[in-house]
Amino acid sequence: MKKRNTQSEIIRIGTDLIARLGYNATGIDMILKEAGVPKGSFYHYFKSKEDFGLAVIDHFAEHFEQRLESFLNKEDVAPLDRIREFLESGLTRVMQNQCTKGCLIGNLGQELADQNERFRSRLNEIFGLWRERFAICLQEAQKRGELSGGLDPNITAGFILSGWEGAILRAKVMKSPQPMRDFLDVLFTVVFGQK
Amino acid sequence: MKKRNTQSEIIRIGTDLIARLGYNATGIDMILKEAGVPKGSFYHYFKSKEDFGLAVIDHFAEHFEQRLESFLNKEDVAPLDRIREFLESGLTRVMQNQCTKGCLIGNLGQELADQNERFRSRLNEIFGLWRERFAICLQEAQKRGELSGGLDPNITAGFILSGWEGAILRAKVMKSPQPMRDFLDVLFTVVFGQK
Repeated sequence: MKKRNTQSEIIRIGTDLIARLGYNATGIDMILKEAGVPKGSFYHYFKSKEDFGLAVIDHFAEHFEQRLESFLNKEDVAPLDRIREFLESGLTRVMQNQCTKGCLIGNLGQELADQNERFRSRLNEIFGLWRERFAICLQEAQKRGELSGGLDPNITAGFILSGWEGAILRAKVMKSPQPMRDFLDVLFTVVFGQK
Repeated sequence: MKKRNTQSEIIRIGTDLIARLGYNATGIDMILKEAGVPKGSFYHYFKSKEDFGLAVIDHFAEHFEQRLESFLNKEDVAPLDRIREFLESGLTRVMQNQCTKGCLIGNLGQELADQNERFRSRLNEIFGLWRERFAICLQEAQKRGELSGGLDPNITAGFILSGWEGAILRAKVMKSPQPMRDFLDVLFTVVFGQK
């Protein structure tokens, strides 16, 4: 296997282990064993466990960014429907995982925000980008007259992000997607005033 | 020190360490060292680390239950104002902690819901009790005509809990209470339609 492929494989396996066990509990040896890579060769691919963790975050964020773009930039779909379809696709994923794992960025924020400033700062950037994506879509909904001009797009985007992260957490604890469904229901009928 | 006092002291120190480091990363030795209790005497107070963890959760939940009761049962305050005052007191606490720690129940849910069924089940019960408290208060607001009868009190209570947990997480990652302020703002002006 070429260096790049092995590195990608380590990141893929690491992402899954970190989503299940958290960052601190994920040992480098566990990852290498599952990847079938000789023990001790980790530092051939990453400078440190921290650099590896940041690579896992970047990999996840890039993938998520593509999903956001594919949903929220659909010009033929009404802006609020784009947000709804995006959140519903997240709900489907959580159900496919039997409400385990949760959101990798939320999990690592919970675990590491007080422990490691490099992680905190990168996670904060990612949440900021997500919020911005939602805010742009809300602005477009206002321009098209779909959404009340009285709502502040940035504050409302942050409100969506908070509520969604909390609903994913509650779904994980409840082992039921109901909190995510309830969040969607109140968001669209009450906050956005649809139907 | 009497057995009961020592046990309480271990729980108090354990609560603080778990809030900062998480459950898995909190070693029994660390707690005993900080409590000034001889190494090896832990099992005099708790059957296992798991039992100790559950005692920490119960201690936190009892304390939180008292706070909920003192805020949400104030008959001389309008029901929605009780919820607002309760959430604002949480915001003040998070600011006093410089946006560190987050919510112990949310943190442990994130860390342990997929790893330990006893923890998951207890944390789920606690979230359920909190939701119920909010739902009762929302029902009272509807009876008094303060809140639209169109909102389902249980779903709305779950919506508040999700949003608040997510806002606390984002405050921890951002090291700013702004997500909590934004959540309060949208909840009261848009969802509850106040002002």
